[in-house]
Amino acid sequence: MPKEIPADSVGIVAPQVAQFDEPLTLRSGRVIESYQLCYETYGTLNEDRSNAILVCHALSGHHHAAGYHSMDDKKPGWFDSAIGPGKPMDTNKYFVVALNNLGGCHGSTGPTSIDPATGEPYGPNFPIMAVRDWVTSQARLADRLGIDCWYAVVGGSLGGMQALRWSIDYPERLKKCAVIAAAPKLTAQNIAFNEVARQSITSDTEFHEGYYYKHDTIPRRGLALARMLGHITYLSEDSMRDKFGRDLKTGKLSFNYDIDFEVESYLRYQGERFSDAFDANTYLLMTKSLDYFDPAADFDHDLAKCLSKSQCKFLVVSFSTDWRFAPERSKEIVDALVRAQKPVSYLEVDAPQGHDAFLFPIPEYFNFLSNFLTPAGVANA
Amino acid sequence: MPKEIPADSVGIVAPQVAQFDEPLTLRSGRVIESYQLCYETYGTLNEDRSNAILVCHALSGHHHAAGYHSMDDKKPGWFDSAIGPGKPMDTNKYFVVALNNLGGCHGSTGPTSIDPATGEPYGPNFPIMAVRDWVTSQARLADRLGIDCWYAVVGGSLGGMQALRWSIDYPERLKKCAVIAAAPKLTAQNIAFNEVARQSITSDTEFHEGYYYKHDTIPRRGLALARMLGHITYLSEDSMRDKFGRDLKTGKLSFNYDIDFEVESYLRYQGERFSDAFDANTYLLMTKSLDYFDPAADFDHDLAKCLSKSQCKFLVVSFSTDWRFAPERSKEIVDALVRAQKPVSYLEVDAPQGHDAFLFPIPEYFNFLSNFLTPAGVANA
Repeated sequence: MPKEIPADSVGIVAPQVAQFDEPLTLRSGRVIESYQLCYETYGTLNEDRSNAILVCHALSGHHHAAGYHSMDDKKPGWFDSAIGPGKPMDTNKYFVVALNNLGGCHGSTGPTSIDPATGEPYGPNFPIMAVRDWVTSQARLADRLGIDCWYAVVGGSLGGMQALRWSIDYPERLKKCAVIAAAPKLTAQNIAFNEVARQSITSDTEFHEGYYYKHDTIPRRGLALARMLGHITYLSEDSMRDKFGRDLKTGKLSFNYDIDFEVESYLRYQGERFSDAFDANTYLLMTKSLDYFDPAADFDHDLAKCLSKSQCKFLVVSFSTDWRFAPERSKEIVDALVRAQKPVSYLEVDAPQGHDAFLFPIPEYFNFLSNFLTPAGVANA
Repeated sequence: MPKEIPADSVGIVAPQVAQFDEPLTLRSGRVIESYQLCYETYGTLNEDRSNAILVCHALSGHHHAAGYHSMDDKKPGWFDSAIGPGKPMDTNKYFVVALNNLGGCHGSTGPTSIDPATGEPYGPNFPIMAVRDWVTSQARLADRLGIDCWYAVVGGSLGGMQALRWSIDYPERLKKCAVIAAAPKLTAQNIAFNEVARQSITSDTEFHEGYYYKHDTIPRRGLALARMLGHITYLSEDSMRDKFGRDLKTGKLSFNYDIDFEVESYLRYQGERFSDAFDANTYLLMTKSLDYFDPAADFDHDLAKCLSKSQCKFLVVSFSTDWRFAPERSKEIVDALVRAQKPVSYLEVDAPQGHDAFLFPIPEYFNFLSNFLTPAGVANA
């Protein structure tokens, strides 16, 4: 909990809920008749509604991107490093919107919500969301907030994929697009890791084919395993070495199957904490959304063609030690934008944190993002 | 099954069992009163017993390294590519010995064996084996076979660690040491992957604290998960891309939680096949042996000092796309050997297969290994 709110924080914030009763037809062909989106806003929308930034979240993220819900909060929102007075998404200048995506488990309609057709939680019957479905639902939220055109859409990892999708599906509705630590599609290895995570969850005997709510249980062990595995891919090998090395938990080897190394203890803690706070069906859904993302597939697998109608300026950022979505993957996006003759700035940040680096206030990265978000921007400079 | 035995095969082979009744004191302080080792031999031991090569196996390996057990076998032994007439371990010249390590599940004493003290399978009470314990037991097998000094000890991955340990613990008992696709110790990331694999097994409700034999069951799902995860780390990202890419199993996305991509199908198959054939307690044991391996730890963490008494010639081989034990890790061994002024040849093979490359008959690699094994050798050339 913060003893006092830092001066560069957006302070105490409260989530809001928007209800949508217009049916949403999804890429899968399925329809959600009505739904709600949970969101937060930081800063003030200016008179001509031209200073709004949408922040899209990654696999385990949500609407609480900045500030605190109460003085009892141990930590601020997940992207607090970048949102607030004087920060890259400067709330003295911009009106920042963050939402929990459809299918999430933090207040927006998702697997834990009651399906009006059955009176029971959707569970595994909640439709798999494509990234484009999220973008459509985000566009409706923009309508609701009276925002015709985002000043910028910003996202890291799966959030970056949403930002990219915005530029394809609603080219006239954003001026700037920041695609951070992302990729234009997952590789076989990326999918393979997701598949092991899914199998961890679905093979947990408490999963009950996804209807664990009915059994008053959760697939805690499976979800913990999925998170442990995910966590390894978020960190660089170097950062794990620096953080843990081969340090022993008790100073000596156990010669039994207890925890020997600090890194084991850390991973178990991360897994257990996550499994108390996240819904397993949402985790499955988010990994499928990641696997399915491949916008170029509809354009003869030509990403430049796919991006040809975009009208915004782009910023693409990668991190040197990110092996989940390595710099090469970001460069695929940059190359396509260059081929499509779109304005793009690219920065590969030399950072030790791996994929997680996108959440850290690394000066070079944040300066670049700040500059990109100024009216002049740096793209095409 | 082979229609006919290939000309460069060792042909039909049969395992043998050696019984040892002299107690073996382990690094953990525990003692195994008696045990058996299952092994195979290929080629003929020469009169002065100077042409014997020991092949050490990796995590999931065993004594059946070459040839066929019967004409019904679908596949030959796991290192058949390298053992046979005219192959690098040329059975026209050398007498090759391969064994199942203690703690294994293929005929040597291990968790599935009956503990004479209880009349029940050892299960999780089987002692965790250190790499040095395996080497000690292998030295006893050498005594039994009348081999005072190995012409060479050869191993890949965890097998390479055993080869390295031989040069430290029995410097006068080997002339050549081939350390392939190995590392002088595991990193935090390596340990982290092993920990997720272990947690997959131990959190399976069929694990029963390791006493699953009593319950007439096996932790099949946990073992399959562990193998799926391991398998990802054995392949390079490029080889997965080339093999599977984003190919779809049925030609279209399912939009449910069925298998979508070929890579998912492949991994599930690998996991299921493995869980039918391998013992979960052995898997746990082998991963702990890997985690614990750190021979330099007893020498002020100075690997050169640790290797200072070795008397053999060394060959160290790494593979360009191996990210489990990357070339940098092999170079740590080479650097230490150079500092210790030991004869060493090093080869980094440009190979797409990742860690698994050490099993493939890559001409550059096999030529190098063949040359190293000739009496003149290439080390110190």
